[in-house]
Amino acid sequence: MYLRSWLSRLCRGLSSPVGRTTPPGWGSLSRNVVLSSHRRIPELSSFVVRTNTCGELCSSHLGQEVTLCGWIQYRRQNIFLVLRDFHGLVQVVIPQDESSASVKKILCEAPLESVVKVSGIVISRPPGQENPKMPTGEIEIKVKTAELLNACKKLPFEIKDFVKKTEALRLQYRYLDLRSFQMQYNLRLRSEMVMKIREYLCNLHGFVDVETPTLFKRTPGGAKEFLVPSREPGKFYSLPQSPQQFKQLLMVGGLDRYFQVARCYRDEGSRPDRQPEFTQIDIEMSFVDQTGIQSLIEGLLQYSWPKDKEPIMIPFPSMTFAEALTTYGTDKPDTRFGMKKYLKRKDIESIRQFATDHFNQEVLPIFLKANRNWNSTVAKFIMEEQRLELARLMETQEEDVVLLTAGEHKKACSLLGKLRLECANLLEMRGVVLRDPKLFSFLWVVNFPLFLPKEENPTELESAHHPFTAPHPSDIHLLYTEPKKVRSQHYDLVLNGSEIGGGSIRIHDAELQRYILATLLKEDVKLLSHLLQALDYGAPPHGGIALGLDRLMCLVAGAPSIRDVIAFPKSFRGHDLMSNAPDSVPPEELKPYHIQVSWPTDSEAEKSSLNQSHHLEN
Amino acid sequence: MYLRSWLSRLCRGLSSPVGRTTPPGWGSLSRNVVLSSHRRIPELSSFVVRTNTCGELCSSHLGQEVTLCGWIQYRRQNIFLVLRDFHGLVQVVIPQDESSASVKKILCEAPLESVVKVSGIVISRPPGQENPKMPTGEIEIKVKTAELLNACKKLPFEIKDFVKKTEALRLQYRYLDLRSFQMQYNLRLRSEMVMKIREYLCNLHGFVDVETPTLFKRTPGGAKEFLVPSREPGKFYSLPQSPQQFKQLLMVGGLDRYFQVARCYRDEGSRPDRQPEFTQIDIEMSFVDQTGIQSLIEGLLQYSWPKDKEPIMIPFPSMTFAEALTTYGTDKPDTRFGMKKYLKRKDIESIRQFATDHFNQEVLPIFLKANRNWNSTVAKFIMEEQRLELARLMETQEEDVVLLTAGEHKKACSLLGKLRLECANLLEMRGVVLRDPKLFSFLWVVNFPLFLPKEENPTELESAHHPFTAPHPSDIHLLYTEPKKVRSQHYDLVLNGSEIGGGSIRIHDAELQRYILATLLKEDVKLLSHLLQALDYGAPPHGGIALGLDRLMCLVAGAPSIRDVIAFPKSFRGHDLMSNAPDSVPPEELKPYHIQVSWPTDSEAEKSSLNQSHHLEN
Repeated sequence: MYLRSWLSRLCRGLSSPVGRTTPPGWGSLSRNVVLSSHRRIPELSSFVVRTNTCGELCSSHLGQEVTLCGWIQYRRQNIFLVLRDFHGLVQVVIPQDESSASVKKILCEAPLESVVKVSGIVISRPPGQENPKMPTGEIEIKVKTAELLNACKKLPFEIKDFVKKTEALRLQYRYLDLRSFQMQYNLRLRSEMVMKIREYLCNLHGFVDVETPTLFKRTPGGAKEFLVPSREPGKFYSLPQSPQQFKQLLMVGGLDRYFQVARCYRDEGSRPDRQPEFTQIDIEMSFVDQTGIQSLIEGLLQYSWPKDKEPIMIPFPSMTFAEALTTYGTDKPDTRFGMKKYLKRKDIESIRQFATDHFNQEVLPIFLKANRNWNSTVAKFIMEEQRLELARLMETQEEDVVLLTAGEHKKACSLLGKLRLECANLLEMRGVVLRDPKLFSFLWVVNFPLFLPKEENPTELESAHHPFTAPHPSDIHLLYTEPKKVRSQHYDLVLNGSEIGGGSIRIHDAELQRYILATLLKEDVKLLSHLLQALDYGAPPHGGIALGLDRLMCLVAGAPSIRDVIAFPKSFRGHDLMSNAPDSVPPEELKPYHIQVSWPTDSEAEKSSLNQSHHLEN
Repeated sequence: MYLRSWLSRLCRGLSSPVGRTTPPGWGSLSRNVVLSSHRRIPELSSFVVRTNTCGELCSSHLGQEVTLCGWIQYRRQNIFLVLRDFHGLVQVVIPQDESSASVKKILCEAPLESVVKVSGIVISRPPGQENPKMPTGEIEIKVKTAELLNACKKLPFEIKDFVKKTEALRLQYRYLDLRSFQMQYNLRLRSEMVMKIREYLCNLHGFVDVETPTLFKRTPGGAKEFLVPSREPGKFYSLPQSPQQFKQLLMVGGLDRYFQVARCYRDEGSRPDRQPEFTQIDIEMSFVDQTGIQSLIEGLLQYSWPKDKEPIMIPFPSMTFAEALTTYGTDKPDTRFGMKKYLKRKDIESIRQFATDHFNQEVLPIFLKANRNWNSTVAKFIMEEQRLELARLMETQEEDVVLLTAGEHKKACSLLGKLRLECANLLEMRGVVLRDPKLFSFLWVVNFPLFLPKEENPTELESAHHPFTAPHPSDIHLLYTEPKKVRSQHYDLVLNGSEIGGGSIRIHDAELQRYILATLLKEDVKLLSHLLQALDYGAPPHGGIALGLDRLMCLVAGAPSIRDVIAFPKSFRGHDLMSNAPDSVPPEELKPYHIQVSWPTDSEAEKSSLNQSHHLEN
């Protein structure tokens, strides 16, 4: 019987209760994203009809004649108008004199969100009317000429309140949602961070950006790959889940250091917070070991980390898979927090209920009183000696709460790991900030098992990650005797409890690769004959990693969903709510591809719709 | 009757006959690609087990202990071995003393193209044995230790002669072909140039790199779009030919300046020198006009132009579509050359035959003798006065040859344009270099027609480019009266006779867009309702361009085919010869997508195979 606890062994540091950071507004965009760089400031008005952006104007522009283009954000009593562009807001004074009647007419009659061009002089706001909250709050524009570039029809809602709308509405009118400060901030932050990642890889470390095909061939076990019918009857391309094979072939081809910001595809049906197409920072190096890849990634993240966030410290801590499971009950621990004594009795009840409902598993709470005695129904079954030993192992302190459970190791650990997060949710609902959104806790998880028993048939093995992962050098001999015990050279990068990257040292020995594929995994090696042959012809030792860019940006931007860091995301059912993709195709357009639709029978359709609604509930 | 000539009106400058530039070798890679940058030199050996690259070693490293990893390129009498990595070649001295017997064994027994790690001291070559053709030719490595990292099986051919093999073999063993100097050079040049393009756009001009979806919805007339079945019966995504709609929607969303190195898809069946997936530098800006986009692109190309090529001069010359057709007989003139007097009588016969065979069109040659008299069968039908007028118009000089033809304007012009290139081929076969491969002649072609008569039904119109192209401001009134006469705000960028980019100012007025789509083009506007609606809600004036990256890199690298600047290209029939994609898929894997294969009947299959062989002949 295993007794596990996640309490107390964790770092006890708990961030002092602070509020969420104030949500940033248009001002922050000007200050942080666009101008934060220590590099040359980009020319934001080159090649276009404006002289300046709205957001950049300040007292140093006083007296200058400027031409601005933007959207009418709002208007006050036909006297002031606030003009918005991607860079910020500026106040425009609508002229009231007779000679400017036509200008006034344009600016007063144009509906909100219309696009206008105005020219005028930058002047000081009258004393007392400055707005210190607005980056351009010291000045305003005295307009001379105005032109209506495009009038806006009545909107289905106001832009500024957009984020409060349902997400479906936001996705349907994505082009309006993109005008919000938050979406502008997220997309610009993403672009800037990716640019710095590229600089680090290309300019600092000689990586070569190579584009690999997405119209490829089925990979073994590639059940989640989208198919693309070709014009040859019965022949299909497949959209691969990653450029894994190509990046290894590039190493065999002597490219030495490859990277790509790669579009990948995964057809998992409906899954919340997953996208059928996603982007990864894909990296591969020759003559490298695990430490080399880890140092590369630590340097990469430090170099590209946004200047308006807390700087990150490297190297990142590392933990074995076994330790992560035992201590945190998960292979992606959120190491921002330990646990302290904020739980109430009724919380414990709800946690026990959660465990029973979701895992069909009993949990026993132990309340440690001031005298360290156990206040628990379990106390009487445990001898004093065991109790002291447990207290020592778990480093319990006065007034700690310990949750005990029994069962199969992995299952028991996973349950306690989930409960730990559930406790965090409970405490945060009560205003205790356990997971500081400004804190970024990176962690390497290493020494994963190379194989797992197949879920449908536990006597057979499947790769814990993918079949090209190299075994741990100390465990190679076990491949031929006890393959289940072999650890791999796979590593995961975890940030605040989310897996944001994973990689491995690959097998470069053709014989070893054949043995693992054919003998241990019983895969059809014919589908991979090109890769096996490549390993025969002088493949260098190599390894790599892929970072999930969408999830990384979601965490960095502090966004609630990866959909908030993607310009045009799909809904969780894989729909584009704006254009209504996927869509029907007339049968004659299917002919060149030699396919036809197999319409489901009524009973099948009903079953499938039941599955859909089941997904919806989850 | 039109009389057209392409001779003499062209710039008469002809580059002096020079040989092709010497093909570069491994030395050039070290000198030009990797180290040419004025920026910080990348660290090429960070994070890995080597201390240096093979290619970088020179006399400044004398006495240093180095560790190198690479492939055995060749071996001489078991005394010398040349080691190769991506950066170049270095000579390794195999130790001959008894105490190094194991090192000698490793280095002498490993087959060529095996991967080894060697450590040793950089020493001077003995006087007289330096190799000035080799960048590392002053030094060699006195080896202390050696390790065989991976042995190479017998290769199907020698790597160094690879480029002489058939292209099919190169594509089948692409991972070996990539080890050639030329492929390393091409892929690294591409990566470097794209990086500089990004720096120019992001860091210098504030563009935002936004990724747009590739799983999208059919576009009107999108017959060349690949389909991707979804898990909903009868519903398909489509892989778009370009992010056109998304980039316009980003402008409506206020993104202001967008770019993306975008993967695009076009299913044209078998076409030589086309790829089913290709890459374009995709750009869109708000509040810009044609001049703005042109200046942006000129700056972009100048900034990113490789340092080892002749610098390019900006601004690029510009020519209207009408002028290009009249003068060069094409909308993508190669302006590197005029035409001079190298043609022989028998050439003229072969040109007349070419015209008859390919265009069913008669061509009359006129040979201008020293006294400017016409030596031509046509001479007697043309009056002295007309002859003088023609000579003046065509700016003929002594000993010019003029080719005349008659017929419908566009057809006659196209024929003469083709003949001009045919003459250039003839002359170059004779050793006259008309098209200097070191010369890069850019040209803007502007003022295209907005519509063309549909080929299958000339009374109906279709877009000359795409339906979002804005009409020329001077021609808007003609939209309602004589739409065929409307010129567009489309522009093409031509380099050495190849179209490498195209773009336009877009329609931002919803009413105009609806009129063109529904009334003039008779398209189903429902497929585009999201875009039309977006134009209603405050769309800014905007325009953009897309550069074809594969073709641009092909021209810059001087490669014979775009396949030489793509790591893993498809064959012209759309096959991946290495992995054998597209491939068959078992029926059960089609089930989740609700499709089945419609196997063609025998007679259909025969017809289709006839079509294929027809394509092969072309």
